[in-house]
Amino acid sequence: MANSTIAANNPTLKSWVNVPVGSDFPIQNLPFGVFRTSSLSARIGVRIGEHVLDLKTLHVLGYLDNLAFDATDFDTDALNHLMGKGKQATRELRNRISNLLDASNDELQKNTHHAEQVLIPNKSVIMLMPVKIGDYTDFYSSREHATNVGTMFRDPANALLPNWLWIPVGYHGRASSVILSGQNIHRPKGQIKPDPEKDPIYAPCRNLDFELETAFITYEGKPLGDSITPNEAEDFIFGMVLFNDWSARDIQTWEYVPLGPFLSKNFASSISAWVVTMDALQAYKVAGPEQHPEVLSYLKYEGEKSYDINLEVLIQPENGTENLICESNFKYMYWNMAQQLAHHTVNGCNVRCGDLMGSGTISGPTPNSYGSMLELAWKGTKPLQMNDGTERKFIQDNDTVIMRGHCESNGVRIGFGEVAAKILPAK
Amino acid sequence: MANSTIAANNPTLKSWVNVPVGSDFPIQNLPFGVFRTSSLSARIGVRIGEHVLDLKTLHVLGYLDNLAFDATDFDTDALNHLMGKGKQATRELRNRISNLLDASNDELQKNTHHAEQVLIPNKSVIMLMPVKIGDYTDFYSSREHATNVGTMFRDPANALLPNWLWIPVGYHGRASSVILSGQNIHRPKGQIKPDPEKDPIYAPCRNLDFELETAFITYEGKPLGDSITPNEAEDFIFGMVLFNDWSARDIQTWEYVPLGPFLSKNFASSISAWVVTMDALQAYKVAGPEQHPEVLSYLKYEGEKSYDINLEVLIQPENGTENLICESNFKYMYWNMAQQLAHHTVNGCNVRCGDLMGSGTISGPTPNSYGSMLELAWKGTKPLQMNDGTERKFIQDNDTVIMRGHCESNGVRIGFGEVAAKILPAK
Repeated sequence: MANSTIAANNPTLKSWVNVPVGSDFPIQNLPFGVFRTSSLSARIGVRIGEHVLDLKTLHVLGYLDNLAFDATDFDTDALNHLMGKGKQATRELRNRISNLLDASNDELQKNTHHAEQVLIPNKSVIMLMPVKIGDYTDFYSSREHATNVGTMFRDPANALLPNWLWIPVGYHGRASSVILSGQNIHRPKGQIKPDPEKDPIYAPCRNLDFELETAFITYEGKPLGDSITPNEAEDFIFGMVLFNDWSARDIQTWEYVPLGPFLSKNFASSISAWVVTMDALQAYKVAGPEQHPEVLSYLKYEGEKSYDINLEVLIQPENGTENLICESNFKYMYWNMAQQLAHHTVNGCNVRCGDLMGSGTISGPTPNSYGSMLELAWKGTKPLQMNDGTERKFIQDNDTVIMRGHCESNGVRIGFGEVAAKILPAK
Repeated sequence: MANSTIAANNPTLKSWVNVPVGSDFPIQNLPFGVFRTSSLSARIGVRIGEHVLDLKTLHVLGYLDNLAFDATDFDTDALNHLMGKGKQATRELRNRISNLLDASNDELQKNTHHAEQVLIPNKSVIMLMPVKIGDYTDFYSSREHATNVGTMFRDPANALLPNWLWIPVGYHGRASSVILSGQNIHRPKGQIKPDPEKDPIYAPCRNLDFELETAFITYEGKPLGDSITPNEAEDFIFGMVLFNDWSARDIQTWEYVPLGPFLSKNFASSISAWVVTMDALQAYKVAGPEQHPEVLSYLKYEGEKSYDINLEVLIQPENGTENLICESNFKYMYWNMAQQLAHHTVNGCNVRCGDLMGSGTISGPTPNSYGSMLELAWKGTKPLQMNDGTERKFIQDNDTVIMRGHCESNGVRIGFGEVAAKILPAK
């Protein structure tokens, strides 16, 4: 698998489709998603610049012949069928699309009637959830985040729990409430205990937070009982999205002992619409942090498994402008995705096509790189100043939280677009 | 909804299909499941005595006309389509089946050719997973179980954590590894820390346990953002199964802080094959334990929401006989299913058709009613004697763990069959 060719990553490639300077979506990216328009039913698309390539129509027109896919893989409202064909097949599909969009190939380019049919202006599409998620797992893999939380809530001298450097700690989340960027969210209600001396109350969350994360989406894994090694792991990962793991901190504090976060998380989690393939990210691999103590055998890996992905979080108050409040990077993560997947399956747990695995909050070493309001405003003690003169300890009603991410090197920018959602008042 | 008629619960009803004395499956039960045979494809069935009623064929023969269902609801490998029609429709379907099997109705009875076609001997069917599970949630609702665990691992004087009497504590589990009774399980491997003074090791689980639970299966709930009240809850519950929440105690001890159990649970969870409808259980409702402190408003309910279901656990060693090790009852649970569902949705979390919600370990007040080996053998200090002369602190390789459950009153027995699985050596 490691040796099969990835066509689209050559930095000198140019597309005959116009890609504006600074776009997240040059020919080297080619992320997959699901869209419809006012006249077209839900189908699979690939983003290029300010256009979406309609794979259903492209297939009907015969441009995707001699690949492993048939009409039902594209004429559908989720990527699961397509991903079900496996890594080699989806790589060949992406390579073929790269070839069709390459400026040096006039096969589609010269056929202007076809090109107009299959290239739909991005402004006229409605994006849909890219995947029917089977199970959703969230990890807790940033050492800085775990240290910050441990410092605030437990013991600064022993901020990391004893298992943290041994285990890529994770837990199961709720698949039903993972929603697409742009879908707004009512402030959740639940049990909180604002006064430690008094009984808990039933009320709207007062400490609503985001968590800056990425998430990966899996191919079909191995059968129940078998494990995936770190060195095999990337063969089971289709791609990545931006992920906002919304968190109700006051609900979490009261509920989470001993079985972990539940209602503090499962009211909503937001993902970005375009799934950036692992193939598109290969040029941005970097070495991860050194791991001491030495990890157990089943977590050992070879080569570079971390990724240099710049990430940022912005708050846009109602009728206000965007406030950049966090700049972080996925490369800071202590545990990488390969180790997460190896750990998840070491007991024989099976992973299915379309599972979603969140990274955990991505905090960096500096205060402006912390990936949650909890850390940025340090438990409310250091409110963030907005450019409209207001301040924030947590997220207020009618705030929109926006996360963006991209890789950049050799003049090529591979972006994720954004994940954004507005918090509406409690119902 | 509460007033719509349930036909099948009359204790004087008799079926013209033979039902052996002591059977779990008289005409008052009529649980739903999915089966195939060596010649018939997967389809929906209803159990009656030692036979399975083939609903696909029954529908083809015209006996299920004028109901809300079509062929695709029965000619399928999961109950999701059928449950998707909602409570009123499935109640009417069960009522119609009761009517067709009633000794006083000769409509199907007299048509012996049809009757032979639709009634398949249970010994010739292969049961399949009844439901495609969307999300799986597990609760922790037995006061006795939580107290026992707190006594063993924390502080006997403060065994219950502060939130326990306020919150039906729950957490998300893994849907992909929920498996059908009869599928055997390899002992999981993972990180354990047998010596507190030494580093953790990667090894097969040494303290493998079961948890005696029931689980309920949902109809489609409300949209994201809306909540279900305790008094509405039963309109969103289709039925119940027996549930073995397999637990690797040594993996759990090391991994569970702070985000809860993960690999200690998600290697497998076993369910029984026949889904007993809530309609069949209405005659076994009982009052639940008094709840002090008074629960918050969103957890208050009217009427009886607990169920008197006798439960037992047996261990069968390789080549040995069954050892009854636990007799418990679902009525002991402190938090009922209506409260669990209300709590789960109070923050707006959406529940979908086919979600599975486990009760949590069902421990009663006496030591022989504890629902796990951890409690029965009290952390290994009181090994259980098997009738082959061996003893058990936890589950050994090649042990089969069997759980059975039934309600009984007025001479009617509503049973769940069993959930059983054998533990194979680690791979």
